[in-house]
Amino acid sequence: MLGRNSYGKSGIRLVRLDRGNASHAVSDLTVAVSLEGKFDAAHVSGDNSSLVATDTMKNTVYALAKDLPGREIEDFALALSDYFLRENPHVSGSEVSIEERIWGRLGATAFEGSSNERRSARAVRSRESVTLESGLKDLLILKTAHSGFSGFARDRYTTLPETSDRLLSTSLTAVWAHRSAAGPFDGRWEAVRLTLLDTFAAHDSASVQHTLYAMGEAALGAHRSLGEIRLTMPNRHHLLVDLSPFGLANENEIFVATEAPYGLIEATVTRES
Amino acid sequence: MLGRNSYGKSGIRLVRLDRGNASHAVSDLTVAVSLEGKFDAAHVSGDNSSLVATDTMKNTVYALAKDLPGREIEDFALALSDYFLRENPHVSGSEVSIEERIWGRLGATAFEGSSNERRSARAVRSRESVTLESGLKDLLILKTAHSGFSGFARDRYTTLPETSDRLLSTSLTAVWAHRSAAGPFDGRWEAVRLTLLDTFAAHDSASVQHTLYAMGEAALGAHRSLGEIRLTMPNRHHLLVDLSPFGLANENEIFVATEAPYGLIEATVTRES
Amino acid sequence: MLGRNSYGKSGIRLVRLDRGNASHAVSDLTVAVSLEGKFDAAHVSGDNSSLVATDTMKNTVYALAKDLPGREIEDFALALSDYFLRENPHVSGSEVSIEERIWGRLGATAFEGSSNERRSARAVRSRESVTLESGLKDLLILKTAHSGFSGFARDRYTTLPETSDRLLSTSLTAVWAHRSAAGPFDGRWEAVRLTLLDTFAAHDSASVQHTLYAMGEAALGAHRSLGEIRLTMPNRHHLLVDLSPFGLANENEIFVATEAPYGLIEATVTRES
Amino acid sequence: MLGRNSYGKSGIRLVRLDRGNASHAVSDLTVAVSLEGKFDAAHVSGDNSSLVATDTMKNTVYALAKDLPGREIEDFALALSDYFLRENPHVSGSEVSIEERIWGRLGATAFEGSSNERRSARAVRSRESVTLESGLKDLLILKTAHSGFSGFARDRYTTLPETSDRLLSTSLTAVWAHRSAAGPFDGRWEAVRLTLLDTFAAHDSASVQHTLYAMGEAALGAHRSLGEIRLTMPNRHHLLVDLSPFGLANENEIFVATEAPYGLIEATVTRES
Repeated sequence: MLGRNSYGKSGIRLVRLDRGNASHAVSDLTVAVSLEGKFDAAHVSGDNSSLVATDTMKNTVYALAKDLPGREIEDFALALSDYFLRENPHVSGSEVSIEERIWGRLGATAFEGSSNERRSARAVRSRESVTLESGLKDLLILKTAHSGFSGFARDRYTTLPETSDRLLSTSLTAVWAHRSAAGPFDGRWEAVRLTLLDTFAAHDSASVQHTLYAMGEAALGAHRSLGEIRLTMPNRHHLLVDLSPFGLANENEIFVATEAPYGLIEATVTRES
Repeated sequence: MLGRNSYGKSGIRLVRLDRGNASHAVSDLTVAVSLEGKFDAAHVSGDNSSLVATDTMKNTVYALAKDLPGREIEDFALALSDYFLRENPHVSGSEVSIEERIWGRLGATAFEGSSNERRSARAVRSRESVTLESGLKDLLILKTAHSGFSGFARDRYTTLPETSDRLLSTSLTAVWAHRSAAGPFDGRWEAVRLTLLDTFAAHDSASVQHTLYAMGEAALGAHRSLGEIRLTMPNRHHLLVDLSPFGLANENEIFVATEAPYGLIEATVTRES
Repeated sequence: MLGRNSYGKSGIRLVRLDRGNASHAVSDLTVAVSLEGKFDAAHVSGDNSSLVATDTMKNTVYALAKDLPGREIEDFALALSDYFLRENPHVSGSEVSIEERIWGRLGATAFEGSSNERRSARAVRSRESVTLESGLKDLLILKTAHSGFSGFARDRYTTLPETSDRLLSTSLTAVWAHRSAAGPFDGRWEAVRLTLLDTFAAHDSASVQHTLYAMGEAALGAHRSLGEIRLTMPNRHHLLVDLSPFGLANENEIFVATEAPYGLIEATVTRES
Repeated sequence: MLGRNSYGKSGIRLVRLDRGNASHAVSDLTVAVSLEGKFDAAHVSGDNSSLVATDTMKNTVYALAKDLPGREIEDFALALSDYFLRENPHVSGSEVSIEERIWGRLGATAFEGSSNERRSARAVRSRESVTLESGLKDLLILKTAHSGFSGFARDRYTTLPETSDRLLSTSLTAVWAHRSAAGPFDGRWEAVRLTLLDTFAAHDSASVQHTLYAMGEAALGAHRSLGEIRLTMPNRHHLLVDLSPFGLANENEIFVATEAPYGLIEATVTRES
């Protein structure tokens, strides 16, 4: 029996140029579309009549991008998810995720885009409702003070020493739900991002969990438009190098940055109901 | 308010060598551990007394690997998830995921391991129950005949021509739930894998959905131990190259393999209840 | 002043299907073309008249693939490099590199291609001569016995203990020069690969350098068609896990596989002149 | 017979923290060391007495980092390459490459490091001389105006239309040789980088080659300390999407960014001798 299923197109790369002014603007997006609905016949008997081809989804993304009035990815995700639901009565749910590469300006018509950080938006729509999220991902941050880890549980397999002074680094992913799907979104995105970074920088951290929660709490506190926020903070461990065999002290100066294994800390912070 | 949260250690790399016989055996695993429970104090007030350090989780994986009687990753996932729940009364749920690199034998003590395909296992445990899954991921497969795509929905943005003869390629990920957590698992894993590949090779494919469902149906039909199976089949598109500008015909011979965009087809096949 | 320069097209993805027999054959190639020559005007004054567009190079690869009689990548590299030199009098040198994904057979028209190992070929041509190389890359291999590392130099920064029993693992890249550009090449490639693997498996290894040299020496010894061979063997370190804090012995059983840092050992083995 | 050979340690990850001031400074480096010399006995007969263990190289990097007076990677590469040559009479050449992740400041003790761009330095030393290079890599840049490509050679396989208006994007890698190994280097690095970017932004580009050469010429012209500069500029193609099937015009607004294939343009610009 066919259980939960969906299909769509991922990795749709779209660069849109706004050349209306002497100073150009660039939108560099990667879009994913996914549909749920009554697709049993396609699966069970090879009857494709209910399938919107994923190639058509791709075409739709390019065509709708052409006439989109603004450049906010939240609006584009809303418009696309609405389109697929509206045009296809047998589709029960649509999901559109967009990631935007952020290009910095070098000049009126030149840009720099080396950052791994991405701005994200996601619209999830059923016939009854829509949820809209914004977020950021792969934002690499580091604290060189005001971070410790002590007082944790100890058992027979615990060897980690306690510390009141360690490097804390993470590749931050944050996703927040909007209480309303109405924009504008750009200024709000900048503001939430700033709150997260300011809190990270200033926090007196007892653990990744502790700082994660403080960041989520600050974001909800400062931004009434947010319904909840989910933070994912892998712990990019920096280990002190033992220099004692060489007769050298290492007073929290020389570290080796490791990729694996890594702690993975995730939590959603919500408003009290 | 703290909502759903979890934490753990990911990317724990473990190579275990069994040297008991003249012919050695290698287990090459990447383990991830994740816990849920009563961690509010750590988040809200920086009280770490309820936190098992993720470094301790890593140590536990190595220590328990030492005395594990067999080499099946399902058993290891069950043992680890059980350990963390048993030893930590305030932990309400544990999840252990293991991916195994498959090494082929070059000799009694030499091996080849270039394949990207991974065998996977996952145990998810609460105080009341455990679910156990096995799977495979990143298995690249290709059909050069018996694959078409036609009769799909057409709208104003549809340009894809119908075809009765196309290349079909995917990087298969499959996860199946065991109806019982009792092994042995090795032979069963090989058998499910073989059913999936045989069905893929033989199927007269009307679409990715059609072949995916046939593979899932065949796996459930042939292997009574499976409760359900989830298949993820990205469509690795191969596009016909237009050679007509050079006066050459291209009778489904010359293709360009593309990475993006790609179709993404996912479904769970279950037993009728 | 313009110094050494070249340009070309890389990452040309080509899948060629041979459907002549009931049992199909697949060539899955990634081709790179690079040209050197008299391109000063393009660089200095923006005069493009001497430039073959890299888009044209891509088209040429597809068009020539169509009518290529065989499937050996060495022949294709020779033909392409010859074409570009022959057709463009102002081009002084051409280089064509090809990597082939190796697909295994699942059936007459179905294939499996998960291996990271690639077969490679490279033709480098001037007006006077051509050199032809074959090779393999990213072949992951592991020895669990007959490998030690001792008697190395010790200085004030040396902490590594000597060992007569360690895991030895590498991701092998090998490139060998043919003494003649005449094929056939398939059987020869298989044979050289087998000699390399057999030697790796059987060698009593005092170091990566020691085993690398033995492999190169064996390849040159067994295959008269080879002029020289270059081997690149990163040392994928496997570190013994210290289980003593848990009261457990670790008799070369439990290792952590590390990605970084890694030893990088490279050497060319040549025939005595 | 043993031909050219070298060995070393790559991927040595080092994070050094300077905590002397209230405002911390972070050096985040990946170091590679490679040695050439009289290593025949190790290869041929398994006599390791001439081998500095690559583990010792790693230790040396950490130990020397501890007492390094400044933070410029050029100085560190010079010091390391000198050390290995000085301490090991049988070593004939040493090469040290360093890549630095650039962290931006969020506060006195907090940093952001998402950029893929890396600053690089390389010292190559023999008993007689040393060459020192600095560079940058993976700097993603884009021009949305003042870029065309026309007047190129046309043959039977040319289908590319001429254009006077295209997007031009590359992931820039630049390496320049210093005429003297004397610092300071930080300000110079910033200045060369700025010249490259300014030239890229302002150039009226007839081709990638044309812009590459202009960038190299400008760098040599403005910075007397540079001996030569090598630029690698992959052409990250942006293809116009054909919207005509949907009754829409596309006046250089909607593009698809592609990863493969890509043009690869490389050249060295030198001073006239």
